[in-house]
Amino acid sequence: MEALFAERTKWMKASDVRELLKYATDPKIISFGGGLPSPDSFPLKDLKVIFDELLHEETAAAFQYGLTQGDPKLRTALAARMGARGIEASADRTIVTHGSQQAIELMGRVLVEPGDVVITEEPTYLGIFTALATYRPTYHGVPIDSEGLLTDVLEEDLQEMSDQGIRPKFIYVVPTFQNPAGTTMSQRRRRALVDLAAAYGVPIVEDDPYYDLRFEGEAEAPLASYDEEGWVVYLGSFSKVLAPGFRIGWAHGAPDLVNKMSLAKQGVDVFTNAFGQRVAERYLTLGMLDEHLPRIRALYGRKRDVMMAAMEEQFPDGVEWTRPQGGMFLWVSVRPGLDTRDLLPKAAERGVIYVPGHGFFPGTPKVNHMRLNFSFPGEGEIRRGIRILGSVLADEGRPRKGPLAVARG
Amino acid sequence: MEALFAERTKWMKASDVRELLKYATDPKIISFGGGLPSPDSFPLKDLKVIFDELLHEETAAAFQYGLTQGDPKLRTALAARMGARGIEASADRTIVTHGSQQAIELMGRVLVEPGDVVITEEPTYLGIFTALATYRPTYHGVPIDSEGLLTDVLEEDLQEMSDQGIRPKFIYVVPTFQNPAGTTMSQRRRRALVDLAAAYGVPIVEDDPYYDLRFEGEAEAPLASYDEEGWVVYLGSFSKVLAPGFRIGWAHGAPDLVNKMSLAKQGVDVFTNAFGQRVAERYLTLGMLDEHLPRIRALYGRKRDVMMAAMEEQFPDGVEWTRPQGGMFLWVSVRPGLDTRDLLPKAAERGVIYVPGHGFFPGTPKVNHMRLNFSFPGEGEIRRGIRILGSVLADEGRPRKGPLAVARG
Repeated sequence: MEALFAERTKWMKASDVRELLKYATDPKIISFGGGLPSPDSFPLKDLKVIFDELLHEETAAAFQYGLTQGDPKLRTALAARMGARGIEASADRTIVTHGSQQAIELMGRVLVEPGDVVITEEPTYLGIFTALATYRPTYHGVPIDSEGLLTDVLEEDLQEMSDQGIRPKFIYVVPTFQNPAGTTMSQRRRRALVDLAAAYGVPIVEDDPYYDLRFEGEAEAPLASYDEEGWVVYLGSFSKVLAPGFRIGWAHGAPDLVNKMSLAKQGVDVFTNAFGQRVAERYLTLGMLDEHLPRIRALYGRKRDVMMAAMEEQFPDGVEWTRPQGGMFLWVSVRPGLDTRDLLPKAAERGVIYVPGHGFFPGTPKVNHMRLNFSFPGEGEIRRGIRILGSVLADEGRPRKGPLAVARG
Repeated sequence: MEALFAERTKWMKASDVRELLKYATDPKIISFGGGLPSPDSFPLKDLKVIFDELLHEETAAAFQYGLTQGDPKLRTALAARMGARGIEASADRTIVTHGSQQAIELMGRVLVEPGDVVITEEPTYLGIFTALATYRPTYHGVPIDSEGLLTDVLEEDLQEMSDQGIRPKFIYVVPTFQNPAGTTMSQRRRRALVDLAAAYGVPIVEDDPYYDLRFEGEAEAPLASYDEEGWVVYLGSFSKVLAPGFRIGWAHGAPDLVNKMSLAKQGVDVFTNAFGQRVAERYLTLGMLDEHLPRIRALYGRKRDVMMAAMEEQFPDGVEWTRPQGGMFLWVSVRPGLDTRDLLPKAAERGVIYVPGHGFFPGTPKVNHMRLNFSFPGEGEIRRGIRILGSVLADEGRPRKGPLAVARG
């Protein structure tokens, strides 16, 4: 059998985060690892109302085969939702996908040939690497700071590529409550990024699953709201504001791109599960999402506060972290030279896991970072977990006992 | 934007069946086109019981992120179900997918390089062509008769390929109530096919979504039950016996193959919607499926009988069709020279659609066939639709009025 495998299987490997999920199901382990919403955030009462309605009305739409592009009523509701975010959106230019991951995969499928350049933030959401593995792009990373992607650096890089005759296939960004860093791109940078996309003819994939999870401060309008020429493909998700279990995401973009994604999806899995789509549409249209959001925001905002307070107290000097205004993650930088992959087994042994930062880098990884999730663990777990992590970090700061290891000849 | 599309988008095209779904939603049209189950077959009362249970118990498993390979309890239940069909199955070697379509796509992803040979029945389920379009195989068709795939022909072809140093990547078959032909492979041919797979080292993909939909006669054991060396990948689906809307299928096969499919799926959509998986597991484990099956069988068996009786009465001489013992389709052959694609607009104009046969052929299509679905339309619709189709076919048999068209110079 081994001889039969296609060459592309060599580039498939398990994402670090998915591997960590195995630990995450052990109830004794405190997990800052996954990007899981809190089970307390699932709107079970709303779901009961919706399920009863779907069993009595529209059973054809909920249980039957559906259109590849997605349930028309859901697409209409999504267009309205995007409209409220300032995006000139339409149902026709919306495709419903099995999570945002599938939308990224479809972008790769319709755009990327081996060796094509894909630009990402540095660090970036690591799911893009598994999503595009089959299409084998060359990644080009552009650093971020507290205002998001460094658009000056991007402009230089795009110009240099243009001089060399290279046109990147797309720029992938998570501008709001970034995964993994938790940072949000400023309005100035957003405008600059959209202008650069138009100037160099490079589509932007704006992955925006956390838009509704803002705990404080003013909302930043999506990149797509500044887009006059149709360069931005906007991705949204119900995984963080309804439940991941329905696996409903969507993409909105230029008509020919969405048509090609739809054609590609037909071959991949024919259509997105109709039941989850009907649930999502009802949840939106009946106003349940908007009623429910303040509860999720309060829940996650509190958890973030608990985590930041615990870090202030427990983490040793020299450790730094971002201060997200929303979302599910923050990003910790330990002292240079320390590799968070080496710390992980020690932390896991004491009952805490996190995601080492190296997997989030498109090029040469920086190894002294970790991503912490604050949405999934309970407040008590957050306090205990951060105390443990603090002690692991403090131990690493101390001079080591015993002789240095000697290389054997 | 146009310049950015990957070359592989050229081979993506809409499947004829999916295009027909657009008509199928028009309530005035009688559709023999899609492969849709009857809405009357959806077990709404069972679903109510299951939904209530899922809202009160195991909410984590139903609504949260899940493992890429699939819900462990569902995989255990599936292994037992396959065991009851004579397959030596295990949960570890089972992966849950977004429909069988995704399982075929994943097989392509892990096995097929451009130009690799994939063997299919002739005619074959046309979803394979869209599923594998990205991987660009060369298809080799082997004809079928009323006993299924002609294994003698396959043996000659495999030997010839072997002589030329060609090892096909897999053989795709729907041995039971075949799509589109409705025929079932005999036990003798099943044994011969599995022996050939082992002898030539070629995996078989056994797509078996209709196994439980037998109206009469004895069940034929799946190919996988004869497989001693692990060459058969067995695909199953809940779309025909629960509801398509949950989008739950599965694959079972050799460990290294299933592992690679799981790695590939991680990049594609991370995991199969957890809610649908829990529904499927409950439906199986609570015995609801087995209780419900006699009802679906009786419903579809009656519809088949109504369709066959109407065809006997209404179809002109020279038209032939298969007599399926189960499933959802039968296959009509009209007189050679008549192209069923040309008939379709005439039939649609009078209110009936079907799927022309040409799309089911891997190589040069035969154009004088059509696939008729009897599970979706009601009995009255079947009678009316067959009468209309009979009159369309009868018109084609008559000498044409007026002068022959003259080519213009």
